[in-house]
Amino acid sequence: MKRSGIQTDPLPSWNEGPSKASILRFVEAVTSEGEAEFVPPVDRIAVFDNDGTLWSEKPSYFQLAFALDRVKVLVPRHPEWQDQQPFKAALEDDFADVLSGGLKALVDILMVTHSGNTSGEFEQIVLDWIASARHPRTGRPYTEMVFQPMLELLDYLRANNFRTYIVSGGGIEFMRAWVEDVYGIPPEQVIGSSIETRFEMREGGPVLVRMPEVDFVDDHEGKPVGIHKFIGRRPILAFGNSDGDLQMLQWTAAGDGPRFMGLVHHTDAEREWAYDRDSLVGRLDKALDEARQQGWTVVDMASEWRVVYPWEASS
Amino acid sequence: MKRSGIQTDPLPSWNEGPSKASILRFVEAVTSEGEAEFVPPVDRIAVFDNDGTLWSEKPSYFQLAFALDRVKVLVPRHPEWQDQQPFKAALEDDFADVLSGGLKALVDILMVTHSGNTSGEFEQIVLDWIASARHPRTGRPYTEMVFQPMLELLDYLRANNFRTYIVSGGGIEFMRAWVEDVYGIPPEQVIGSSIETRFEMREGGPVLVRMPEVDFVDDHEGKPVGIHKFIGRRPILAFGNSDGDLQMLQWTAAGDGPRFMGLVHHTDAEREWAYDRDSLVGRLDKALDEARQQGWTVVDMASEWRVVYPWEASS
Repeated sequence: MKRSGIQTDPLPSWNEGPSKASILRFVEAVTSEGEAEFVPPVDRIAVFDNDGTLWSEKPSYFQLAFALDRVKVLVPRHPEWQDQQPFKAALEDDFADVLSGGLKALVDILMVTHSGNTSGEFEQIVLDWIASARHPRTGRPYTEMVFQPMLELLDYLRANNFRTYIVSGGGIEFMRAWVEDVYGIPPEQVIGSSIETRFEMREGGPVLVRMPEVDFVDDHEGKPVGIHKFIGRRPILAFGNSDGDLQMLQWTAAGDGPRFMGLVHHTDAEREWAYDRDSLVGRLDKALDEARQQGWTVVDMASEWRVVYPWEASS
Repeated sequence: MKRSGIQTDPLPSWNEGPSKASILRFVEAVTSEGEAEFVPPVDRIAVFDNDGTLWSEKPSYFQLAFALDRVKVLVPRHPEWQDQQPFKAALEDDFADVLSGGLKALVDILMVTHSGNTSGEFEQIVLDWIASARHPRTGRPYTEMVFQPMLELLDYLRANNFRTYIVSGGGIEFMRAWVEDVYGIPPEQVIGSSIETRFEMREGGPVLVRMPEVDFVDDHEGKPVGIHKFIGRRPILAFGNSDGDLQMLQWTAAGDGPRFMGLVHHTDAEREWAYDRDSLVGRLDKALDEARQQGWTVVDMASEWRVVYPWEASS
């Protein structure tokens, strides 16, 4: 779908190819008033996974880097962590060792690093970290390791009266602190995993205290549950990159009328990372099979993205 | 604040009085660009309780009438209920007896009447009920027993670029089925109590199954928790009518900048009901004291509302 003349390409970082064509075709179809596939703006709900879909997730989820940095900040108050797993591995920045402890190790680390403060305090901790932390490979702030083609897609959808939501396994309050600035997605359109919070009336006024208890896991089967709970409408477009997004894509696909289901396939070891079926982080296996079978859009990052990160966009 | 000339009164069902004046003053202040109290549209979040604030709640919560009607529909499959409390009381429409069983009786009834189907099936059940059920005193559909002055307030706020949310102890999926039609509030702006749902892949496609387990209680301390979870921003206006709204009002009041906290005080035994400190349903006691102390707006229904229900509006 070549654009010419005065019309500007809304997706300049996407090479001409099947994925770009299918996005343009879908948006044109649902926004053409009077046509068979027209969808009124109120139902133009688009949901996006975050880790591996809107930003990178290697060597591990960026929120895990945050958690490991928090372990280092908190260890003076917990000297016993020096010899105790998974904290010992965390202190050594050994992602693989932390992840080898499975869900229990992960929850142990998330609970001690994400609770025990108020919602306001936690937001400030995240903001301070996201402003100062640097990715181990690129040396860039994590907020620069977002995908330029996906930023363009978010803008393009919003320009066509879609509401764009994040539906991520990541922490809802971790994301809300910075995603509005980075993706243009306001807090009320961020759905994620959460821990319990408790209302407390203190001398200085009411606070919400973050408790070391899991409230909601917004991953796999949790994603359609989260969508239904927070939005109460079925999306017409869903984008993910891993098996954790499969149920969200299935839920989106099962609605009536035109639908768009997309997967970012990490095929670019040069500019980003190449991984799918065998990756511990961001495994893409069953969802890839289903996408092929159902004819969903699978974005071949290596060939379909002209640029990956915003800092390459000027080249 | 008398309006005259070609300017139309945005709140015609409110008598001139302190509550109407304080609403008009607040909205004018936060929407006057360049003035000290201006609030950008993105932060104009207004939250409303539902039972007793947007519609009546006597002789008991309308959702309880729904639950009791469901018990009658389901009893052929559960003959044992005939002699078993709280179901026996439910079958006799004895609200007082059901409520005397306390929280446990209520949860027992809510679980059996609100679970065991899919989200789509439940929505249809609610829609069928709300279309056919009639209030025992007025003989009107429950959706006509909404407060005309509050409908006008919702419209007035939205005309001034507020986003209006419901934050109710009532069931989120019970409300979402009909509140968009009745209040103009879309599903994603409805926060309420919920039971767990579970994603299941069936032959006909994926479904969300409603489970007999409490997920979230959006009342008292739960209201600020729900607001923070679903919206992630602090409201600048909150309206309730009972002690169950106190923490929501405190949370709203504790933010920076201009704030509006309001309570509907049920003082009208003629046109609606008169109750406050001694009522089991909609008890208004601590919140009334705090409102007086803090100078929040307390709406005296009997003297400040020219009409209560929409059907009186034409008179």
